[in-house]
Amino acid sequence: MNIFSTRSDNELAMPNHNLPPGTLIIDPESSKPVLTVFGYSPDNFEERTLSHPDEVKEFMQKWPLIWLNVDGLGDEATLRSIAHIFNIHPLALEDIADTSQRAKVEQYDNHAIFIVVPMPHPVDHEHEFTTEELCLYLGERYVVSFQETAPGDCLEVIRNRIRQKKGRVRISNAAYLAYALVDTVIDAFFPIVSAMGDSLDALEARIMEESKNSQIFDIRAVKVNLMRVRRAVWPMRDAVLNMTTMEQVWGPDLRPYLRDASDHISRLMDLIETDRMMASDLMELYLNSTSNRLGEVNKFLTVVATIFIPVGAIASIYGMNFDMEKSAWNMPELKWTYGYPFALGLMTAVAATFLIVFWRRGWLGNQFDGNKQKPK
Amino acid sequence: MNIFSTRSDNELAMPNHNLPPGTLIIDPESSKPVLTVFGYSPDNFEERTLSHPDEVKEFMQKWPLIWLNVDGLGDEATLRSIAHIFNIHPLALEDIADTSQRAKVEQYDNHAIFIVVPMPHPVDHEHEFTTEELCLYLGERYVVSFQETAPGDCLEVIRNRIRQKKGRVRISNAAYLAYALVDTVIDAFFPIVSAMGDSLDALEARIMEESKNSQIFDIRAVKVNLMRVRRAVWPMRDAVLNMTTMEQVWGPDLRPYLRDASDHISRLMDLIETDRMMASDLMELYLNSTSNRLGEVNKFLTVVATIFIPVGAIASIYGMNFDMEKSAWNMPELKWTYGYPFALGLMTAVAATFLIVFWRRGWLGNQFDGNKQKPK
Amino acid sequence: MNIFSTRSDNELAMPNHNLPPGTLIIDPESSKPVLTVFGYSPDNFEERTLSHPDEVKEFMQKWPLIWLNVDGLGDEATLRSIAHIFNIHPLALEDIADTSQRAKVEQYDNHAIFIVVPMPHPVDHEHEFTTEELCLYLGERYVVSFQETAPGDCLEVIRNRIRQKKGRVRISNAAYLAYALVDTVIDAFFPIVSAMGDSLDALEARIMEESKNSQIFDIRAVKVNLMRVRRAVWPMRDAVLNMTTMEQVWGPDLRPYLRDASDHISRLMDLIETDRMMASDLMELYLNSTSNRLGEVNKFLTVVATIFIPVGAIASIYGMNFDMEKSAWNMPELKWTYGYPFALGLMTAVAATFLIVFWRRGWLGNQFDGNKQKPK
Amino acid sequence: MNIFSTRSDNELAMPNHNLPPGTLIIDPESSKPVLTVFGYSPDNFEERTLSHPDEVKEFMQKWPLIWLNVDGLGDEATLRSIAHIFNIHPLALEDIADTSQRAKVEQYDNHAIFIVVPMPHPVDHEHEFTTEELCLYLGERYVVSFQETAPGDCLEVIRNRIRQKKGRVRISNAAYLAYALVDTVIDAFFPIVSAMGDSLDALEARIMEESKNSQIFDIRAVKVNLMRVRRAVWPMRDAVLNMTTMEQVWGPDLRPYLRDASDHISRLMDLIETDRMMASDLMELYLNSTSNRLGEVNKFLTVVATIFIPVGAIASIYGMNFDMEKSAWNMPELKWTYGYPFALGLMTAVAATFLIVFWRRGWLGNQFDGNKQKPK
Amino acid sequence: MNIFSTRSDNELAMPNHNLPPGTLIIDPESSKPVLTVFGYSPDNFEERTLSHPDEVKEFMQKWPLIWLNVDGLGDEATLRSIAHIFNIHPLALEDIADTSQRAKVEQYDNHAIFIVVPMPHPVDHEHEFTTEELCLYLGERYVVSFQETAPGDCLEVIRNRIRQKKGRVRISNAAYLAYALVDTVIDAFFPIVSAMGDSLDALEARIMEESKNSQIFDIRAVKVNLMRVRRAVWPMRDAVLNMTTMEQVWGPDLRPYLRDASDHISRLMDLIETDRMMASDLMELYLNSTSNRLGEVNKFLTVVATIFIPVGAIASIYGMNFDMEKSAWNMPELKWTYGYPFALGLMTAVAATFLIVFWRRGWLGNQFDGNKQKPK
Repeated sequence: MNIFSTRSDNELAMPNHNLPPGTLIIDPESSKPVLTVFGYSPDNFEERTLSHPDEVKEFMQKWPLIWLNVDGLGDEATLRSIAHIFNIHPLALEDIADTSQRAKVEQYDNHAIFIVVPMPHPVDHEHEFTTEELCLYLGERYVVSFQETAPGDCLEVIRNRIRQKKGRVRISNAAYLAYALVDTVIDAFFPIVSAMGDSLDALEARIMEESKNSQIFDIRAVKVNLMRVRRAVWPMRDAVLNMTTMEQVWGPDLRPYLRDASDHISRLMDLIETDRMMASDLMELYLNSTSNRLGEVNKFLTVVATIFIPVGAIASIYGMNFDMEKSAWNMPELKWTYGYPFALGLMTAVAATFLIVFWRRGWLGNQFDGNKQKPK
Repeated sequence: MNIFSTRSDNELAMPNHNLPPGTLIIDPESSKPVLTVFGYSPDNFEERTLSHPDEVKEFMQKWPLIWLNVDGLGDEATLRSIAHIFNIHPLALEDIADTSQRAKVEQYDNHAIFIVVPMPHPVDHEHEFTTEELCLYLGERYVVSFQETAPGDCLEVIRNRIRQKKGRVRISNAAYLAYALVDTVIDAFFPIVSAMGDSLDALEARIMEESKNSQIFDIRAVKVNLMRVRRAVWPMRDAVLNMTTMEQVWGPDLRPYLRDASDHISRLMDLIETDRMMASDLMELYLNSTSNRLGEVNKFLTVVATIFIPVGAIASIYGMNFDMEKSAWNMPELKWTYGYPFALGLMTAVAATFLIVFWRRGWLGNQFDGNKQKPK
Repeated sequence: MNIFSTRSDNELAMPNHNLPPGTLIIDPESSKPVLTVFGYSPDNFEERTLSHPDEVKEFMQKWPLIWLNVDGLGDEATLRSIAHIFNIHPLALEDIADTSQRAKVEQYDNHAIFIVVPMPHPVDHEHEFTTEELCLYLGERYVVSFQETAPGDCLEVIRNRIRQKKGRVRISNAAYLAYALVDTVIDAFFPIVSAMGDSLDALEARIMEESKNSQIFDIRAVKVNLMRVRRAVWPMRDAVLNMTTMEQVWGPDLRPYLRDASDHISRLMDLIETDRMMASDLMELYLNSTSNRLGEVNKFLTVVATIFIPVGAIASIYGMNFDMEKSAWNMPELKWTYGYPFALGLMTAVAATFLIVFWRRGWLGNQFDGNKQKPK
Repeated sequence: MNIFSTRSDNELAMPNHNLPPGTLIIDPESSKPVLTVFGYSPDNFEERTLSHPDEVKEFMQKWPLIWLNVDGLGDEATLRSIAHIFNIHPLALEDIADTSQRAKVEQYDNHAIFIVVPMPHPVDHEHEFTTEELCLYLGERYVVSFQETAPGDCLEVIRNRIRQKKGRVRISNAAYLAYALVDTVIDAFFPIVSAMGDSLDALEARIMEESKNSQIFDIRAVKVNLMRVRRAVWPMRDAVLNMTTMEQVWGPDLRPYLRDASDHISRLMDLIETDRMMASDLMELYLNSTSNRLGEVNKFLTVVATIFIPVGAIASIYGMNFDMEKSAWNMPELKWTYGYPFALGLMTAVAATFLIVFWRRGWLGNQFDGNKQKPK
Repeated sequence: MNIFSTRSDNELAMPNHNLPPGTLIIDPESSKPVLTVFGYSPDNFEERTLSHPDEVKEFMQKWPLIWLNVDGLGDEATLRSIAHIFNIHPLALEDIADTSQRAKVEQYDNHAIFIVVPMPHPVDHEHEFTTEELCLYLGERYVVSFQETAPGDCLEVIRNRIRQKKGRVRISNAAYLAYALVDTVIDAFFPIVSAMGDSLDALEARIMEESKNSQIFDIRAVKVNLMRVRRAVWPMRDAVLNMTTMEQVWGPDLRPYLRDASDHISRLMDLIETDRMMASDLMELYLNSTSNRLGEVNKFLTVVATIFIPVGAIASIYGMNFDMEKSAWNMPELKWTYGYPFALGLMTAVAATFLIVFWRRGWLGNQFDGNKQKPK
């Protein structure tokens, strides 16, 4: 795969356009679903990994609130039975299986809320990142979350809050849990965008130190990543805004929290825009330093050529073979006692004249090295 | 025709501006209409190719829902009798005959809905594509679809769903059928946009490998195609949005489906914008590599000229004809035992000095070839 | 006048800012008004050229609908008596006389509608065009149209429809006639924009064939024209939109027609935007080919200079006058039997080496000519 | 002061940020207020220059409508007594004294309207212009206008209309007077923007004639002025729009007039945008002609160097000193009867070859001079 | 830290994403809180520095209005007890502690208003600036303000107004105090933006005097600062707009004041946009002058090389060794009486010809120095 591709494999996935809407497409290489369920009340909680979806019914009877997390989408039967248990709309189920969705929040007629957000996977490389789709299906007493890949995500902090009864999650309703999950995902973008900014800072330092051709690819790589993260974050704005309009779900108590999430997205967008502007400026800086290098090469040629071409021309003149015997007009200099020193002096004078011109125009200093010095 | 033209022949077609609104213009080269009709109920279906429009009346009596598809617009009488049977508004009929419409959804006073969408014809070339206009006239119990060219389209999947009773189409109303047709057309754009992205990826790899002048035309070609696909898709956004406001036609049951179609268009626009940005970046990359090539040429000239011009100048000096007999000052070097080696040494020293300067400035490495190496 | 001026003389006309609003300014060079009147009913029509405005009163009594067309605005008395007869608002009359208006639709308290649209005059040159102002004053039973210049316009098609009872115009009201006139004017822009697109296509073909300095002026000329047509068309959008909101004038029956006009403007804007984007791309193409030409010049210099400068330097070396008698070290080559062939061989070897380097770098092919070949 | 500064002194004035809102800051260098008052009724009028603000009270009793004009803001006591007489809001008074406001229209609770508009002072230079702030305080029966500098403004036309009973001003209310003043100020921008357009036309003609470095400064100067006029005009749009919403002040009778003013601003903005686009294009044209000049220089070097370097190299070859006595292989040409003509012929042939190449590539024509010729 | 970083340390701070919402994060290096309280009535005031938050309760009983200012956020216990006393919402408290917020105004259900604005710290350097976050918590009878760093801010002017009973602050309510604080902060941005404009003016003067490579970094630095100040000011627009919608807090009396603050932000944005445009133009100017310098170098090379290369070639021709004994055709010039003067004359003629060409093309004048002269 071309590493500069702006599109992840997910994004390239085409909608299942030859099938009726609501049809489930299971990627055969997708990992098999792992089902983990949390049941909790303000006073207690229970956590279990399920071997079969039906086991969740027992939890639903036992606990006022449950959170079922599905890791991996590779088994249609499992998905269908979960959909049946929680009464998930066929289109929502199709969107769950299709992992190329944009962030969105939708309400179905059975008053269930369906939320899709991209969840970032931080990776080792400086500014590489991958996202997977996190789908939440929110009913009155449950949240079902679907993830594309095997266990390992940024939601562990929420699990710990449930386990340790930190924050409001244990004492709030399912809508709060859904909000908390979305908020956690939003915040998980910050270190990624921050790392991109750091890459740009480092790149700028390197361009100022010494400009190289490969830097254009580095700038490009950051730009592509910024565009991808922007495309992931941008629809989340509308999605969170959508959430704030669903007053019957997230009541007045939760409104400040949603506004807070909305604020975080605004800050993310600010940071991304700043980084994009910085990347554009870097390109300008890079092109300027490239053009300076070319100018340096031209200047060097000019200095050397304009000094030695006249010297060579003068030398050639005294290398002419006019017959001095025939006429006193013919090259009398050759017979002068100081003819040779005179010729050398003439050459030196010409060269010196040009050198003075160059010096006065400031062409002898090395402009390009000046690039290395940071101002002030 | 200029292959870079951004306008397809259709788009160039001018509205019939010398005729009163509602006048039908039949392109004489257009193919004759082929009428295919589907009548279906949840339990059964019938499919037939009609020899005369009036035969459709029999279907209308027999089946609760019918879909009449008209392939080819080359016969005014046929169009007029269809319009008469289905009570099609004169302006809608004019728009059907005029194949240069933008996507739109309009409601006429007889509560009929008129939909125009561009339908892509995938073709062999990498990123070439053509569209034809698909017009839908939607009544309470029928959908009439008009296509510009002879049979062969992306709607076969819908026909199969009717035949095989797949999905909801057989058990839903005419509005659902219209939605399904529009949705299929939207989805048919995905492979095309995807192919353009692939072209850009391939082009980028080639530019990084070796930049050539012809690449600017390749970039241009993709940009033109992107602009054309963008111009086709953009008005579909408003059209689908329009559909969602017609609640009495597409009721609450179908709203999630329309939202889904709207989502697909958003994703299409995202992909197109990404590709456009990528094409701009490619142009930047191309121009940078062109400028690097020019820089390489200049550097080569500089290196060779600044080495050999001084060498030539020194040689010319010892080619001067000053009379050594006349004065000991005149070119004593010529009589030195090691005069010639001294001169050669002087030349070598000058050349070596410059070479060292070049080497320290990094001008000897081949920057241009460095372009071929992908970073990291 | 500078032919590149982006402003037509009309547009430069300043509002009469030293006079109270409502004052009439008559351009003395303007042609005298020619008054033509149509009176018609569904059954019959009468057409006459009037010698005095008052004659129109007779028509008003005789016919249910009349259309008075005024060609030329060069007589204040005539305008004032028309204004008096049709009760035209002073500000509307001022706007009629001032020929530098933008498209607009305004409603006065006496329920009259005042419409201004730019009407294109197609001209011979490729992409030159001029507009004149068409003002319509629409009452319940009449339309008065004002044109700046002498007879000759794109409204003849409407006149023919009245004469030949084609379309709906004879059986509709005055508002329909006003709509039909506006629609005709909108459609008259299509061939102009189309011609500009053709100019761009032709220009592109020529730039690809061979880039010349004068082409930048051609691109500029099209851009200026596009900007002018855009400035003329853009306000018509709002004007037509305004018309759709005046429900009491253009009732539900006419709404589809107004939507149709609105669609045509959207398509016009699409075409103009496409042409603008194409003009920008052409500039990029032009600059690229200019830069390629410069690169070709540089490459030629580099190839010739780097081959002949070393050859010259070698020749100069063997032209040195070191005394071979004094020492066996001094230029022994000169006495070799094959000294001269050796020297020529050395030169050939150096030249061949450089030629091979050039060939391997692809500098010997003529990149610039490559511009002539269209891809694929 | 830097003449390219984009900011006038006014604009640089900072709000009085260390003082409580409502505090009056009097610029000590400001000229002392000159008070002129007009009292008028439909039948008569009186005009007087006041020595003390209190004299205006007498006018207020005598005339149904008065217009007090204050030229110069350099005396706090005078301003405060005017404010007291007309009940001017403290914030409005602060804004009157602070001469760096944007255009705005505000309504205070005492139903007074406060209007700020920039009033242009036409100056001699081509496209220089300065603005001063015109503040209007509009009550039911009076308009108080404040100007920053000593008498001399574009409002004389309004004064003449009052004196000569031209137009509607004498028979209308105070709101009409305020409208007339604003309208006059708007129209005063037209000749300024028009003059800028003329400057650009002239500049374009000069760039096409011969490109010079100083032209970039001329383009810059126009751009800066355009930006300043744009910044002055832009907020007037919102201000006039604001006026149209104040129905109780400017009733239905005046609405067409306000729409007319709004139209004039739209046309101003159109002209400014056109000029801005033209300035951008000029920069492109300038840069292109600069780059052409550089190309010309390079081409000249290439032509001369590629002809004479090979000639020099050939001459050097026949200047080599190989010993013809030693071997028949050594430089036999030197002994040919036609050796010298042969060598000259060789040089001529090489030079001619290159000249033909140059001629066929079109490098011998003077592209740069071609810039002088206008196309077509 | 990279001095060109567009992000201050604050901005880089990530939200506490591993903690439940409402958790307080105290930066251990933050300075300990210093509490200063003002209690005031229209008649009197009291000012004290508190050693413990609880002391403020006494003030609340004693005075109708109090303003508590907290400088430094380095102690959780203090913050929590203040939050407890004033009933501050947990999310607001979290935002107070997290110093990377955007400007915002929020209303909590207990009718308290929470305001965040960036407060600039003017610093010595030309266009450097830092901001700290100012948070205001506004209740019916109190304003609590939180600042990040130790005492020293731009709010001293408000304190003086309270102490000296200047302006309306002593006679108004808490909402007015909050408005006055926000207004003071807005006005504090003016000198900073103004200083940036001055930097740009100075930079422009220097670029016109002599273009240097380091100037690109200076332009960059101003651009980065402009972007930072823009990012700080932009959200304040929405925040102040938000304030105007909270009618129950800032009643009709205060509306003109809020409009005034909104106006100031608009003027700030105008100035920032102007400066941004100016920075872009400077970059264009800089690049143009860089390109002119390169052109000068090329022109110098061209002039020297095209004069001396032909001279050298001619000299080389008369340095050829054709055997004059063998043939009268061989280099007869060498034996001419005036052969040498003839050769020198030939060289002079060629050089003079080129010099005349250069002079006529204007290549001998020093274009680059011309950059130093300001136009007009």
